[in-house]
Amino acid sequence: MATEFSRYDQKLEFILRSAAQIFADKSYHSTSMRDIARATNVSLAGLYHYCKSKEELLFLIQDNCFGRVLERLEERLSDVRDPIEKLRIFIENHLSFFAANMAEMKVLSHESQSLQGDLRQHVSGKKDKYTKLATRILREVHDGSGVNLTVATYALFGMMNWIYNWYDPKGRLKVHDLAQNLTQLFLEGFAPGSSFEVSDKFPRQQPENLSVWRGASRQQEKPIR
Amino acid sequence: MATEFSRYDQKLEFILRSAAQIFADKSYHSTSMRDIARATNVSLAGLYHYCKSKEELLFLIQDNCFGRVLERLEERLSDVRDPIEKLRIFIENHLSFFAANMAEMKVLSHESQSLQGDLRQHVSGKKDKYTKLATRILREVHDGSGVNLTVATYALFGMMNWIYNWYDPKGRLKVHDLAQNLTQLFLEGFAPGSSFEVSDKFPRQQPENLSVWRGASRQQEKPIR
Repeated sequence: MATEFSRYDQKLEFILRSAAQIFADKSYHSTSMRDIARATNVSLAGLYHYCKSKEELLFLIQDNCFGRVLERLEERLSDVRDPIEKLRIFIENHLSFFAANMAEMKVLSHESQSLQGDLRQHVSGKKDKYTKLATRILREVHDGSGVNLTVATYALFGMMNWIYNWYDPKGRLKVHDLAQNLTQLFLEGFAPGSSFEVSDKFPRQQPENLSVWRGASRQQEKPIR
Repeated sequence: MATEFSRYDQKLEFILRSAAQIFADKSYHSTSMRDIARATNVSLAGLYHYCKSKEELLFLIQDNCFGRVLERLEERLSDVRDPIEKLRIFIENHLSFFAANMAEMKVLSHESQSLQGDLRQHVSGKKDKYTKLATRILREVHDGSGVNLTVATYALFGMMNWIYNWYDPKGRLKVHDLAQNLTQLFLEGFAPGSSFEVSDKFPRQQPENLSVWRGASRQQEKPIR
């Protein structure tokens, strides 16, 4: 990933995160480029300087999200050997990333079929890689005869991804506690007895900017003109 | 519920289940009444004889689904006292109902905010009642200090509702086995040790028409003219 974060990149990111919010609010199909221009205070001509279509915006949102969550996970797993620790990190990584990117999470979920052709295939490739990594970790945790591995993988994604319907990251339940609860619930169900091994291994992470966008955090978000 | 199932009702149901399929395929906002008229082979004027707006169609789909799944659950729970048996029935009921109504499930999930005013409030009332019943069962199963009850409730709905993204009711994994897997996974995680008590209490149900619509099953679906 390029380390330079130019003024061009900043503005593109601002457009992307605004677009993600509008897609989440009123759906991709009901959003026009004009809506995005209005919300970002960028002229329609200016908008087309940054992206050639609404579809490209949706692609960049999906591609960045799957790319970033996978990249961060691979970094965090690089020197971990214990399967249960891997699963704990997988769950914490997914939840903390998407709790910081709730609008994008809804867009990923609702608009998974809105891209076509090569763009769709490219995103599907990353998504498959991420899903397969999850299944591989589950197989390592419990290569037994218990719960069907496909069911377990999607049950885990289901309980994590459903948070965009109910969870408020600014509410009383902190994402750290959400992750701990869901890890205990899933792990104990999937590999009975194992969750006790991790109950004291749940370090409280340092605050970190987990927005998929490198620019200013959402709270301080200001239009870049 | 009226027991008479008139020709008018039959046609309205045919329109509703066609509308659910189209909303699931291309989203509520992108669907026009003209699309529904085309798909059902009913004239636009004819369509307005059955419902006064697209919003009313969405309302009837949502209201029927929450109404039917709740009604069926209450019937099945009426003489059950054991909390774990209640939870087993709750999961089986939800999954078998929605596996038979996958398009509607997607519409319920994606279009939960598409209704406004009284219609929305009416559906929210039924949905709340259903969610509270789930939480009440979970509290009975495990009134301890374990997993946060709100997290557990939504984790359960998440793992069940996510099936519209991956599960094929006509595939190799039968809904009975899906339910058994998810029950084991959730119950063992939520109340360790308890799932063993139900492993032999998982009767294979008789085939039953579980479509939310009383008319012909989807496979035999034919336009009623």
